[in-house]
Amino acid sequence: MSAIASKARQLHLGAFFFGVGHHLAAWRHPEVDPRAASDIESLKRWARIAEAAKFDAIFFAGNVGLPGPPDEGLAKNALWYPMEPTLTLAALSQATTHIGLVATVSATYLPPYHLARKFATLDQLSGGRSGWNLVTSGSDFEARSFGLTHAHRYARAGEYVQIVKGLWDTWEDDAFIHDKAANRFFDPQRLHRVDFEGEHFRVAGGLQTPRSPQGHPVIVQAGSSDDGQDLAAASAELVFTAQQTPESAAAFYRSLKGRLPAFGRSPDSLKILPGLSPFVGRSEQEAREKFEQLQGLIDPVLGVGLLSTFLGNVDLSAYPLDGPFPQDLPVTEGWKSRAELFKGLARSEGLSIRQLYERMAGARGHWTAVGTPETIADQIEHWFKSGAADGFNILAPTLPSGLEDFARLVVPELQRRGLFRREYAQRTLRGHLGLPRPENVHARTAAALGD
Amino acid sequence: MSAIASKARQLHLGAFFFGVGHHLAAWRHPEVDPRAASDIESLKRWARIAEAAKFDAIFFAGNVGLPGPPDEGLAKNALWYPMEPTLTLAALSQATTHIGLVATVSATYLPPYHLARKFATLDQLSGGRSGWNLVTSGSDFEARSFGLTHAHRYARAGEYVQIVKGLWDTWEDDAFIHDKAANRFFDPQRLHRVDFEGEHFRVAGGLQTPRSPQGHPVIVQAGSSDDGQDLAAASAELVFTAQQTPESAAAFYRSLKGRLPAFGRSPDSLKILPGLSPFVGRSEQEAREKFEQLQGLIDPVLGVGLLSTFLGNVDLSAYPLDGPFPQDLPVTEGWKSRAELFKGLARSEGLSIRQLYERMAGARGHWTAVGTPETIADQIEHWFKSGAADGFNILAPTLPSGLEDFARLVVPELQRRGLFRREYAQRTLRGHLGLPRPENVHARTAAALGD
Repeated sequence: MSAIASKARQLHLGAFFFGVGHHLAAWRHPEVDPRAASDIESLKRWARIAEAAKFDAIFFAGNVGLPGPPDEGLAKNALWYPMEPTLTLAALSQATTHIGLVATVSATYLPPYHLARKFATLDQLSGGRSGWNLVTSGSDFEARSFGLTHAHRYARAGEYVQIVKGLWDTWEDDAFIHDKAANRFFDPQRLHRVDFEGEHFRVAGGLQTPRSPQGHPVIVQAGSSDDGQDLAAASAELVFTAQQTPESAAAFYRSLKGRLPAFGRSPDSLKILPGLSPFVGRSEQEAREKFEQLQGLIDPVLGVGLLSTFLGNVDLSAYPLDGPFPQDLPVTEGWKSRAELFKGLARSEGLSIRQLYERMAGARGHWTAVGTPETIADQIEHWFKSGAADGFNILAPTLPSGLEDFARLVVPELQRRGLFRREYAQRTLRGHLGLPRPENVHARTAAALGD
Repeated sequence: MSAIASKARQLHLGAFFFGVGHHLAAWRHPEVDPRAASDIESLKRWARIAEAAKFDAIFFAGNVGLPGPPDEGLAKNALWYPMEPTLTLAALSQATTHIGLVATVSATYLPPYHLARKFATLDQLSGGRSGWNLVTSGSDFEARSFGLTHAHRYARAGEYVQIVKGLWDTWEDDAFIHDKAANRFFDPQRLHRVDFEGEHFRVAGGLQTPRSPQGHPVIVQAGSSDDGQDLAAASAELVFTAQQTPESAAAFYRSLKGRLPAFGRSPDSLKILPGLSPFVGRSEQEAREKFEQLQGLIDPVLGVGLLSTFLGNVDLSAYPLDGPFPQDLPVTEGWKSRAELFKGLARSEGLSIRQLYERMAGARGHWTAVGTPETIADQIEHWFKSGAADGFNILAPTLPSGLEDFARLVVPELQRRGLFRREYAQRTLRGHLGLPRPENVHARTAAALGD
């Protein structure tokens, strides 16, 4: 059994750090330190919990603006992203040894040169553990931070990724020969600058950073729209997604994996991790109590504000709190897939605005599971084996306690079932995910020419 | 004596990390590991050498492009900036406890929002030890990395700094009240978004990062031109400068400090640190041998290339190597102060191109001192006491050995003379430099109104 289990397909797990927990009222929980998300000592403890449980990666989201005004609702919530994520991961790289380090950086407001250099450096600092969650920014408050009124989006992202990958291939792996006698630090034949002219970008240059341990940091994405899926199929190796049921997750899984052959890619070359917000108790009742305790702390202003924020700051104030969630909201481009998810859920279950925000408060549209280690493992196993997921991104409702519960109670149950590693077998994020190390495109070309 | 010494004005010391050493041939030295500058374990050892010697700060420069082509000369040199400096410092913040962490980031190609967030985060990660070396990029190879053909420069930099400081003041120090019972994470009255419209920038928004331990990270500058001095007088708190003699350094010191009153600033509010490249031996002969060993490793192609690079890629190939250094070079805007320094030196000492690059190879126009701990300390003391410097930025010819020599041999001599601290008295970079923590501009305004 264990020999079979060790060869069987294994789950991948991410630990998604978000403020002091994903639940809207997390910071008000008596056990939660509201300062923790900007305190590196706390963040180190969280990262070590995830590493001790053999997670594939920790994941920091990020944005580049402060929502609002108005600020009354905002002030009831913990800030989501108090720290710049790549610097935070650079610091955490020195407190961990194996776990992957994934950060969201928007391609909308940062030149590709900076992006490529950041993640190449993080890969060097961590010995091959970095991943870039490619997002494009759709919110007005972010656009204003850069003096812009709207964002480009997916149209630019394809070119952006192409430039970034080109910059990561500036140097062949063995370019730095360090020949002191011959006075050659590198071999100029193995240096390849980017010379890109596209519709959105013109970049000519190279990185000073040597090719990184992973060749390319892992490219992650979270877009679930049709355009987002196409971009993911073209370039992503790990996809985070918000799914409420194994059926919808399986449909998404099939849809996205089905797009890969058109890009010459195998289904295994991209791993899909739906989000999971777990409330774990030693009994069903204990789990339920943990859930209700947090639900009881939600402020209606904040609940409505959450829905509004996740629909791109749509004004919901004209609609009654206990009336039906409106189906005709004016939702802007960047927020359509989330709006569809909300509207569908409200329609199929007849939810009011209040009921919808209560449903969303735990994890913003991600799957919330309340139960014992066994019942949660049962569900994980079902999603995993029914073609709905390659693993899960764990959205702990509170940090670190919600993550600790999952790590101490659910992970051992998954390990007993042979579904999850007991030890790291590899040292890089690509290794954990079973992704190949990309060859340098110029080395490939030279080999093909028999050069 | 010791009581007097402890109250006397003290030197400030920076350790400038640059490739594997500042000497042009550093990487070819038998003791030097050419891979070290992109190896975080090596960088940690270097940082700890500087911290053990009680330096005020370590300093990473950076640029955003790869010079060339042509690449033949480039390939003879170590790369200067293999790693993104702020991520590198974020990693090093976890391996050190007191030493300041200063990085160069160009204001030319990075939106001010990103800049402000980076350094605010580094200040959080390090407990108040971050500093930003504000540069503007003048090189063509950097401009091309961003699809641009020329850079703006100082005209933009003034606005840029204003926005960055505004973003650092988004939150008053006590804005985060974390009142769980009243459901207020922060006090909206103590949140102040930037709303800036200038000639070069339009930014409306705030950082999610709380006000940092230092209030504002220390602002550093290195421009020595007239425009650069004005920008420094307006906004810098620490200035690095390349000076060959105590007389020229004193003239610069007087000129820059003399500009401060016009900006309502005291002479003490800005510290001036000329660069010093030390070759330290237990005897004069040992020091001279260390110097000659490196000088003997300089390749003429590289020597001419160095001069060319530091003049903005001016073509020197038409001039004979052993003929006089030309006085009529077509030098572009960004490189004028360095060109003046080179031309003046060549004229006053009658140097050929070869003699000039031999002179520059150690530290690119910075002061090079070859001697025993005593003779080097004598010179440092003379510069310091004659109004030429508030301290020095140490450009070790090789890393880490050149830094170790200075730390083990010269620093104790400076300490014996009462010129340099034996222990850190403070925990922040501002503390080491004796700079006040800036009050939040909005808190000042409120206080002035009796609010």
